[in-house]
Amino acid sequence: MKRVMIIGGTHGNEWGGIQLVKNWRSDPPAAWQDYPFELSLRLANPDAVRHNRRYLDQDLNRSFRAADLSDLAQQSREMQRARSLLPDLQQADFLLDLHNTTANMGCTIILSNPQVKHDPLTLQLCAHLCQIDSRVRLYYMPFADDDSPYLPSQAKRDLTIEVGPMAHGTLKADLYQLTETITAAALAFLAATLQGSAPLYTEPLTVYEQLQNLDYPRTAACELAAMVHPQVQDRDFEPVQPGEPLFIDFEGNSIAWSGSETVWPTFVNEQAYYEKGVAMSLTRKSKWLLT
Amino acid sequence: MKRVMIIGGTHGNEWGGIQLVKNWRSDPPAAWQDYPFELSLRLANPDAVRHNRRYLDQDLNRSFRAADLSDLAQQSREMQRARSLLPDLQQADFLLDLHNTTANMGCTIILSNPQVKHDPLTLQLCAHLCQIDSRVRLYYMPFADDDSPYLPSQAKRDLTIEVGPMAHGTLKADLYQLTETITAAALAFLAATLQGSAPLYTEPLTVYEQLQNLDYPRTAACELAAMVHPQVQDRDFEPVQPGEPLFIDFEGNSIAWSGSETVWPTFVNEQAYYEKGVAMSLTRKSKWLLT
Repeated sequence: MKRVMIIGGTHGNEWGGIQLVKNWRSDPPAAWQDYPFELSLRLANPDAVRHNRRYLDQDLNRSFRAADLSDLAQQSREMQRARSLLPDLQQADFLLDLHNTTANMGCTIILSNPQVKHDPLTLQLCAHLCQIDSRVRLYYMPFADDDSPYLPSQAKRDLTIEVGPMAHGTLKADLYQLTETITAAALAFLAATLQGSAPLYTEPLTVYEQLQNLDYPRTAACELAAMVHPQVQDRDFEPVQPGEPLFIDFEGNSIAWSGSETVWPTFVNEQAYYEKGVAMSLTRKSKWLLT
Repeated sequence: MKRVMIIGGTHGNEWGGIQLVKNWRSDPPAAWQDYPFELSLRLANPDAVRHNRRYLDQDLNRSFRAADLSDLAQQSREMQRARSLLPDLQQADFLLDLHNTTANMGCTIILSNPQVKHDPLTLQLCAHLCQIDSRVRLYYMPFADDDSPYLPSQAKRDLTIEVGPMAHGTLKADLYQLTETITAAALAFLAATLQGSAPLYTEPLTVYEQLQNLDYPRTAACELAAMVHPQVQDRDFEPVQPGEPLFIDFEGNSIAWSGSETVWPTFVNEQAYYEKGVAMSLTRKSKWLLT
């Protein structure tokens, strides 16, 4: 593991990672001098950062499918940016991609590589981060068909760190500090692993595994017909039993979870996902063995 | 009082008022049939609503200064819209303008007309709304020089209702319902007043009076140098004593309130006010006599 990369601004209005990358670029922590890898700090979409927008033409974090990258008819600003970032991303041995969300996700580590279950290094890192702060949670949301659209997946290993609730285009001090603490701890752990001084974790990991995304109830004209229910709003990763409410319409009628198993919603009411047709992602709480 | 107007979408990404106006237009409450005034429901900036943006060219809610309206060299989309709205606004006897904020302002009634202290009808309405829900607060932020830039001030009487915390471009069910409850209660009170059946309030009102706006600490290059302190974030209308922290920089150093009197911040860390250079508005807690 020679190259570690920290990315902020994959979405240009998610200020936590953007500010941390800027601050660490101008004032790198002293401890880094001793780290046995090359560390690079990048803003993934500086044009979107300048405009304080999630993206200019299309979501950069959905722009990395091989078929799209090789289709030169696709010339949006984000596709061009994706192609220019690709060589550097592919050379990264470990990539941490820093995001923010309006959902109350604390500090959620998103694992998107289907192979990650068999990767002791990444799992040990996750175990380490979980015991640093109780707001850290693990969310397994694997990409399909071995063809990830996500930016961080282009590196050999990656984590996405999703911090919230924070309105896009703002900073919240406690969540900025949490992002800094967790990202710094991840770097220290990777260094310790290479130096043979990392602790070994053996307790099973609690992982929330993606089941499905749910859209908001909508009218025939596709307009919103309901909102997230107050019992679910801001309660990411809390269980919802079959028959319990998920949504509430504008007359105050509840709409219940109609599935047959308990689910743990997350990305609850994320602002940027209205346009994607995602009101929340339903997950199943699971244990992953480490040994 | 013949004409009452409810406005949503003065800012096109503040969904609470927009959704309420849409819902009430398609399904007006039955009680309205008996109200002794004409009621109109309007989206102030439908183009901005369509784009889900606060505004297209400039803030519509700062576009109503007389000098600007009469300066036909100013042809931004919002200036054009302001001119086309003006006749209807001026005919409204009472206007309620529905807004949302990322700040934890609950349901804050903003009074901007310097004459409001001498207007028993508006003060009685405020007293009524305060006793409906403990999240209702009164914020006096008078415009200067008898020339308001605000949309609702063009009516004979007005209130701005500011509801949060809610990320722009989202709905939160409990805050949507609070907006509906308070707005419906305001209409019912105005009707009852005209019909001679309104209660008479005599207890003094608690009013937070504008002192000054504070920007974020910034670098020489005008970039953010600090964030709102965790002790102030989400604590709108809670007192800050001289010497207590207001901000925290990226190294964790606190920046204290350097004034000599206790202040009650509000609009704390509102997303749309970064561009206006406002981290928070400082107020003084005051009592207004009703009789």
